[in-house]
Amino acid sequence: MQIAILSFFHYFTPMFKKRESFYDVEEGKFLSPQFAKDGLITVTTTDSKSGDVLMQSYMNEEALKKTIETKEAHYWSRSRKALWHKGKTSGFLQKVIDLRIDDDQDALWMTVDIGNGSSCHVGYKSCFFRSIPLGPIKNSEEIKLEFKEKEKKFDPEKVYEGQPNPTKL
Amino acid sequence: MQIAILSFFHYFTPMFKKRESFYDVEEGKFLSPQFAKDGLITVTTTDSKSGDVLMQSYMNEEALKKTIETKEAHYWSRSRKALWHKGKTSGFLQKVIDLRIDDDQDALWMTVDIGNGSSCHVGYKSCFFRSIPLGPIKNSEEIKLEFKEKEKKFDPEKVYEGQPNPTKL
Repeated sequence: MQIAILSFFHYFTPMFKKRESFYDVEEGKFLSPQFAKDGLITVTTTDSKSGDVLMQSYMNEEALKKTIETKEAHYWSRSRKALWHKGKTSGFLQKVIDLRIDDDQDALWMTVDIGNGSSCHVGYKSCFFRSIPLGPIKNSEEIKLEFKEKEKKFDPEKVYEGQPNPTKL
Repeated sequence: MQIAILSFFHYFTPMFKKRESFYDVEEGKFLSPQFAKDGLITVTTTDSKSGDVLMQSYMNEEALKKTIETKEAHYWSRSRKALWHKGKTSGFLQKVIDLRIDDDQDALWMTVDIGNGSSCHVGYKSCFFRSIPLGPIKNSEEIKLEFKEKEKKFDPEKVYEGQPNPTKL
């Protein structure tokens, strides 16, 4: 039923061109995003200053539209099942500098200016603050990560006081 | 059944620490990747030279292990349903410079050296060669993309001759 409603909505939403040919989707001039069955498209967000990947998350159609129109990042929070205007709680808004779509139009790359802010709910600037060592894996040992950011940029217990943790085990 | 087998495999795979506490997953020193129900984890791949996002794709447990051990990018091809040693057909191998995992350990960021190669099966260097214009959306008009790469780096019809197109409409 959800899929039927989405398809109906897509069909009558002229801002997105219908996906009808490989050439148009892959090399054409019009936006024809592919939302997955759950209505979401993946988004990689990078920092306009450092180039670092800040976070990997999801948008639904409404979040994509709001991001384009307001030039501020909006996502779909899978844990809260709600539209997520990034920075509304923490104050760390993301101003969109560039928004790209990939060849088969099922993934977005968004470059944002976060000023002196942060992106990670744990307190670091980037969510990707740990690196996996490369090379042979010893089967008897767990893989130990290397921290690439030395200090937290903010105290999440103060900034997100009383909010549920979005991480799922 | 697939989930049961994966859980069983995970439980007896000491290289990944079991996901038991929020603190350990989010701020701990050990790799505890969260593969989704389909057995996959998202990966964003960036170019070590330009910093550009090249592609957004997926790894299963085997692809992640092979990537770590060989220092060459391996993915899971959802269209072919097979392990995908990137560049094996095209010659455009990706040498892994850095591999990071995010706070809740359900996404990877991989920085790669592609030399003078390309990443996009359409022929461009990055899969994200088109930009979405920002600002008010006119409801009566489709959104026109802006090309950010001017020329293809290779001819996909020669390089991938006879291979099926991975794009799905």
